[in-house]
Amino acid sequence: MVRVNVPPSAGAPGAVFERAAIIAVGSELLGTSRVDTNSLFITEQLNVLGIEVAYKSVVGDDRVQLGAAVRFALDHVGFVVCCGGLGPTDDDVTREVVAEILGRPLTEHEGITTRIRDRFASRHMDMPSINRRQAMVPADTLVFNNPHGTAPGLWIDEGDRAVLLLPGPPRELKPMLATVVESILSSRSPHRSLVTQVVRITGRTESHTEEAVQSLYREWARAAVPVSATILASLGQIELHLSARAGSPARAAAAVKAAALQVSEAVGLDAYSLDGRPLEQVVGDLLVERQFRIALAESCTGGLLTSRLTDVAGSSRYVESAVVAYANSAKVSLLGVPQVLIDQHGAVSEPVAIAMAEGVRASARVDLGVGVTGIAGPSGGAANKPVGTVAIAVALSGSTRSQQFRFVGDRERVKRQASQAALDMVRRELLL
Amino acid sequence: MVRVNVPPSAGAPGAVFERAAIIAVGSELLGTSRVDTNSLFITEQLNVLGIEVAYKSVVGDDRVQLGAAVRFALDHVGFVVCCGGLGPTDDDVTREVVAEILGRPLTEHEGITTRIRDRFASRHMDMPSINRRQAMVPADTLVFNNPHGTAPGLWIDEGDRAVLLLPGPPRELKPMLATVVESILSSRSPHRSLVTQVVRITGRTESHTEEAVQSLYREWARAAVPVSATILASLGQIELHLSARAGSPARAAAAVKAAALQVSEAVGLDAYSLDGRPLEQVVGDLLVERQFRIALAESCTGGLLTSRLTDVAGSSRYVESAVVAYANSAKVSLLGVPQVLIDQHGAVSEPVAIAMAEGVRASARVDLGVGVTGIAGPSGGAANKPVGTVAIAVALSGSTRSQQFRFVGDRERVKRQASQAALDMVRRELLL
Repeated sequence: MVRVNVPPSAGAPGAVFERAAIIAVGSELLGTSRVDTNSLFITEQLNVLGIEVAYKSVVGDDRVQLGAAVRFALDHVGFVVCCGGLGPTDDDVTREVVAEILGRPLTEHEGITTRIRDRFASRHMDMPSINRRQAMVPADTLVFNNPHGTAPGLWIDEGDRAVLLLPGPPRELKPMLATVVESILSSRSPHRSLVTQVVRITGRTESHTEEAVQSLYREWARAAVPVSATILASLGQIELHLSARAGSPARAAAAVKAAALQVSEAVGLDAYSLDGRPLEQVVGDLLVERQFRIALAESCTGGLLTSRLTDVAGSSRYVESAVVAYANSAKVSLLGVPQVLIDQHGAVSEPVAIAMAEGVRASARVDLGVGVTGIAGPSGGAANKPVGTVAIAVALSGSTRSQQFRFVGDRERVKRQASQAALDMVRRELLL
Repeated sequence: MVRVNVPPSAGAPGAVFERAAIIAVGSELLGTSRVDTNSLFITEQLNVLGIEVAYKSVVGDDRVQLGAAVRFALDHVGFVVCCGGLGPTDDDVTREVVAEILGRPLTEHEGITTRIRDRFASRHMDMPSINRRQAMVPADTLVFNNPHGTAPGLWIDEGDRAVLLLPGPPRELKPMLATVVESILSSRSPHRSLVTQVVRITGRTESHTEEAVQSLYREWARAAVPVSATILASLGQIELHLSARAGSPARAAAAVKAAALQVSEAVGLDAYSLDGRPLEQVVGDLLVERQFRIALAESCTGGLLTSRLTDVAGSSRYVESAVVAYANSAKVSLLGVPQVLIDQHGAVSEPVAIAMAEGVRASARVDLGVGVTGIAGPSGGAANKPVGTVAIAVALSGSTRSQQFRFVGDRERVKRQASQAALDMVRRELLL
């Protein structure tokens, strides 16, 4: 963090913020295909500090509209977070609009220019002259360096109010907000901690999950530290978001943790993670625990299953190899699936999935083999095997288990659900 | 549609709306897990009519905040759409807040009450008395029936401005908006269609793209049909969103199409798609055109490259198979990479990438082989080969091209950028 023209009040404790407004800036967020999701992360960070989000806005790259939105926000809440519009181009107007509203001239900050120039130089490139705009900051501003991009963050106090400007890309925004929280916000917020814990569930519908936990909702509402729950269904899984507010983070965390354990008892093995870990990470942790290596034979999932497993850091400890046998001939030549099985049962069948799982397990010389074969669509379906039919097998020493599924949705949804089902079959196998 | 206290002006042509604001109402939309997506659908419907969305807001179930938001919206745009907060409970304050701002008393509309009572009766239930609140409407309001729920929609003219209240659940909102468009908006919108086209670019930074097209921006702004542009950088690619408004969809489309061609000239081969097609689709289309089949040998990308290629419907026409050789031994046994190459150059090196590409091309007997080997991190880096180092090779009959990259970011970002670079190398090879 670099201080620029430190105002007399900086460093001294400032006003405490109870409510905030979030303004997402970017014309692309006013189109038909993108939503602002940065505000979810910002809300989470603010809620932990006890700061409530009073409202959110999305405005385009438009000086007039953004100016009106910032003025309105400053009139209604103590703390305004703007994200986006800090890039180097003519579209990026956030700096200028906020400086104008606060009546503070922009001046070039040499430290920022140098940092941006160095960033380009490290990639053997010259800094384009337009990037100089990113070094223009209003007077009396705290500057936050951006290790992941060129736009610095800016904190501007204005009486007992404040405006925070953050870059739009999430990987730049997230670490920067963490620094802002630590260096400024943690001492200027009500501190009534809100703690959230996510239980992830697979293998049952939203309604059946709701039925299993409904009586818990009532119990939690009456508890000394009340826990609230939001249920969210996404493809092939249910998330239960449990939150509690208490005087200390520890008390709030204890309440949500106890609630998570109750959910786990209510839904049994269907709860695959009580701490938000994704399924591929849970499977990876189980493989490490059992000291197993895994190999995969994919058809309809086209590499997605292996890609998900290898998204986990350290997965080279247990992922040996995979074969994506998209063509039938590849199933025979690469995995040793007998042609007669394909002729008799069809390429999408449990016998073929079993031969794929056992074939890849044997050839890769690992503990666990997985075979997935199916029809991702949109074409290729038949009356007895419609689009979405997927056969999955998991082969271990001495035992192979297989199952056939019928998923609904387009190509990407079938691929996603099939990879989720395969990971879950592996998980349940490893828990036996 | 039922007219309540039809105002003298109704039926006569009213003001034409050029800009709208969308206000999503509901405290759940200010939490950490849900975003407003209704506005995407509403935006789509409005854009087709030539109505631009000037900004969007999300407010909680809070009279003061919602009142301020509606007042602000009415001050800035001609047409305000509120969605949500029309339910029967105390939380649902949209009707009352809007009535108060417009200074129109709420009165019970018997037709609505009857309809809600009938709805409950058809399910053998009595109407709970709280549902009577949903029949309270401001004076001079057009009422839209809700076949999918209890909350009717309300259209309120106020001078040359108007407020539309829609229920929050998408399956109630969507058909109702269609009715509103047909019965009112289609005759009160500019009809100047807004057409958007997306140019996708890879192989250069946002700033360098901007430099190449900046002079075009000025030209487009002065054109008979002005074209506006928004530039968006994401991992390994740049998107340029071009939009134009004109009297007819065809004229607007012609303007953005011409602009897209100018961009394509300015950045050359770096523009990989002028019509929004993703890179994997562009590569697929080129493979079909050349009647080539492809096989892939992946290491650090862990199946992601093949998964992206197979996300495209019909990809079984050109994707033969893939090998994910995560362990070094798998590179030797599955792809025939000579152990001596790995010993001499390291597993992450252009010679190994070349051997992988040529090995998989030969064993799968296809036209085109791709090899990707790298260090996705977070561990495994060395001084001369840090995390993010990736070697990629593309083998065709008689020629193999290879390149080494250094990507920045965490594991998933390195995987993503490596898959993007590999697809782009294949694309450029197919264009030769």
